[in-house]
Amino acid sequence: MKLEVLSCSQRGERMPSSPIRTLQGAAESAKKRGIHVYHLNIGQPDIATPQAILQGFTRFNENVLEYSPSNGIPTLREAISGYFSRRRIAVHPDDIAVTVGGSEALLFSLAAVCDPGDEIIVPEPFYANYLGFATMLSVKVVPLPTIIDTGFHLPDRHFIEKYVTEKTRAILFSSPGNPTGTVFSKKELIDLAEIASRSGIYIIADEVYREFVYDLDTEFVSVLEFAEMTDHIIVTDSISKRFSSCGARIGCIISKNRAFMQVVEKFAQARLSPPTVGQVAAEAGYRMDPSYFEPIRREYRKRRDAVAEGLAFIPGAKFRVPEGAFYFMARLPLTDTQIFCRFLLTDFDYQGKTVMLAPGAGFYSTPGLGTDEVRIAYILEVKKLSEAMNIIRHGVQAYHKLTG
Amino acid sequence: MKLEVLSCSQRGERMPSSPIRTLQGAAESAKKRGIHVYHLNIGQPDIATPQAILQGFTRFNENVLEYSPSNGIPTLREAISGYFSRRRIAVHPDDIAVTVGGSEALLFSLAAVCDPGDEIIVPEPFYANYLGFATMLSVKVVPLPTIIDTGFHLPDRHFIEKYVTEKTRAILFSSPGNPTGTVFSKKELIDLAEIASRSGIYIIADEVYREFVYDLDTEFVSVLEFAEMTDHIIVTDSISKRFSSCGARIGCIISKNRAFMQVVEKFAQARLSPPTVGQVAAEAGYRMDPSYFEPIRREYRKRRDAVAEGLAFIPGAKFRVPEGAFYFMARLPLTDTQIFCRFLLTDFDYQGKTVMLAPGAGFYSTPGLGTDEVRIAYILEVKKLSEAMNIIRHGVQAYHKLTG
Repeated sequence: MKLEVLSCSQRGERMPSSPIRTLQGAAESAKKRGIHVYHLNIGQPDIATPQAILQGFTRFNENVLEYSPSNGIPTLREAISGYFSRRRIAVHPDDIAVTVGGSEALLFSLAAVCDPGDEIIVPEPFYANYLGFATMLSVKVVPLPTIIDTGFHLPDRHFIEKYVTEKTRAILFSSPGNPTGTVFSKKELIDLAEIASRSGIYIIADEVYREFVYDLDTEFVSVLEFAEMTDHIIVTDSISKRFSSCGARIGCIISKNRAFMQVVEKFAQARLSPPTVGQVAAEAGYRMDPSYFEPIRREYRKRRDAVAEGLAFIPGAKFRVPEGAFYFMARLPLTDTQIFCRFLLTDFDYQGKTVMLAPGAGFYSTPGLGTDEVRIAYILEVKKLSEAMNIIRHGVQAYHKLTG
Repeated sequence: MKLEVLSCSQRGERMPSSPIRTLQGAAESAKKRGIHVYHLNIGQPDIATPQAILQGFTRFNENVLEYSPSNGIPTLREAISGYFSRRRIAVHPDDIAVTVGGSEALLFSLAAVCDPGDEIIVPEPFYANYLGFATMLSVKVVPLPTIIDTGFHLPDRHFIEKYVTEKTRAILFSSPGNPTGTVFSKKELIDLAEIASRSGIYIIADEVYREFVYDLDTEFVSVLEFAEMTDHIIVTDSISKRFSSCGARIGCIISKNRAFMQVVEKFAQARLSPPTVGQVAAEAGYRMDPSYFEPIRREYRKRRDAVAEGLAFIPGAKFRVPEGAFYFMARLPLTDTQIFCRFLLTDFDYQGKTVMLAPGAGFYSTPGLGTDEVRIAYILEVKKLSEAMNIIRHGVQAYHKLTG
């Protein structure tokens, strides 16, 4: 018996901090100094939550707030099935397991297909929490490089195949993408599907932004449409962005692979139940008419275009107008956006206002990449966004003056 | 490139099914045959959820259902601190991270202290989902035997110490216990604390049943009272049973170990937020006066005594009246309670009614143990409980007649 210093687990130590929240302290200090901070750093939409969903909470009328079934309330699973049916995608309620947000959908999916030391291929830059969930499960993220010059679209199929090893269990991606806004084409998805089929690996497609596609010539294709290889296909979904219901914590896993879904159900049973009232609310959301999204898409499109216009006025900035989601991954004429983003909060304001951005490096696991990029979330109304973009322009000028 | 059959992960395959829900199909069939089924198999209380908590849902009045801070709404963390303060335990809001139920509190705690292959010692029988979370994280559960003859109290300290290896990271237990109802004495907890201190391991105490202690001569001691070894102490908590709010999915982790809490916060950031409205509701619960529990304790005490009386009328049944929680782990005069519990649902009724119980083996990870035990949850009113116990007595008789 010996006296030891207590340590945490290696996975705990390796666990990444959130790149989105890392500057929160500096933002709070700026606010205390009386400076108004526009938050373009987080994906928390400002769109009003639909009344139908809010009423799911306010009309809750049971005596006992009970657990729901582990894989979700049956009528919610039917409503999700109906949502996809209206989009001409056949998903049976038994193909759906309700989860605590898209977060738990990702955690369960990775745990169901990967053991410690296994690898997942993830196009980089990627949603930072993919690395978080993988680290929690001792799974290795193998980044697949994509670059701003090609709009963060996928490289050639033969290039991707070189990343597949004996340890590879899945390719994980989001489309429309966070942080890139990129929507993968049908051709790109078919390439991934062929790789998955040949290599005996899974495709885990995070489709939480599926409704947020802005141009008529951009076709959103769901991997759920690939009927001939359903055993390989796992989709993670969430109501957080779709119905502006981040705080409900309702998502789901969709797959027609029975063995996989049985494993997911065992994970789901262990944690007993997703939030009960949130599921009642989510059901109302999934039952809404698709026309609900039309004005929202128009609004986001205007915002996207406002950010593009703002970026065009920053000399040396590089970007491509993204097809979907509500993010730009833009290159700024700077060597270290981590320092710049902090500067905006600690040593700069323009007429009493400044902007909080997410430094790009947090969306890469390859050291040194993304250091001249920022993620801009367009989750404010156009007028505020345009003002924020103008503030960024002045911020870049001020930073250049300061650093020579 | 080769064509492969897609497999799931080993941890997914090894993941245990819920012993509580395993007979659900047989119960549904019984109901379809018109038989009334008393559910003593699950820990879903029938106690009305406090109005203050339900109003937290129905009065929610924001335009946008936003994420909360990852570690919980500050006023909820203050309310939890106040709850402990009223019980003369000093817990600072910074020592608290709000989680998605006690389930996530357990998952995060295990992930923060254990890597794949590490071991946790768990007094057996134990809450079945401990094994689930450990399996999900590729952590090994090392069962520490406790037996019905000593009321499932802990063995001698030197006996326990033999279970500590180089891979041991924590001792995990619930007190008051699920499935045993056993409340560990101060002496037992001091023994565990000394082992933890000497061996450099953590104590993870699941105190979700802390309010459910029924006798004046039973003192509930929280490990949070062990001020001299706070670095070793982790408590997992939940409002599910305490405030009859299972469906809210709100729990928390409490620890004064800063390094541990920082790792927990990284896990919490990855999944973004616990349910927002559920936290508003939970806050109302934690602010209630301790007198709220008095009639509830009286009610559960009556129920406990009704189960004890019912068991006393079953010849050959063995049990000890448990000190807390709302479970009995009882031995029946049978060799296989898995078969008996199924029999109750498929081939038996007494005046059109039967009972669903949880077979004991599901609460043991040691093969062959608990096969003559059942867990009885006393979550129905006394009259129904007494009737259910009478049905079990007739069921045992009928089963004996059938099996000779």
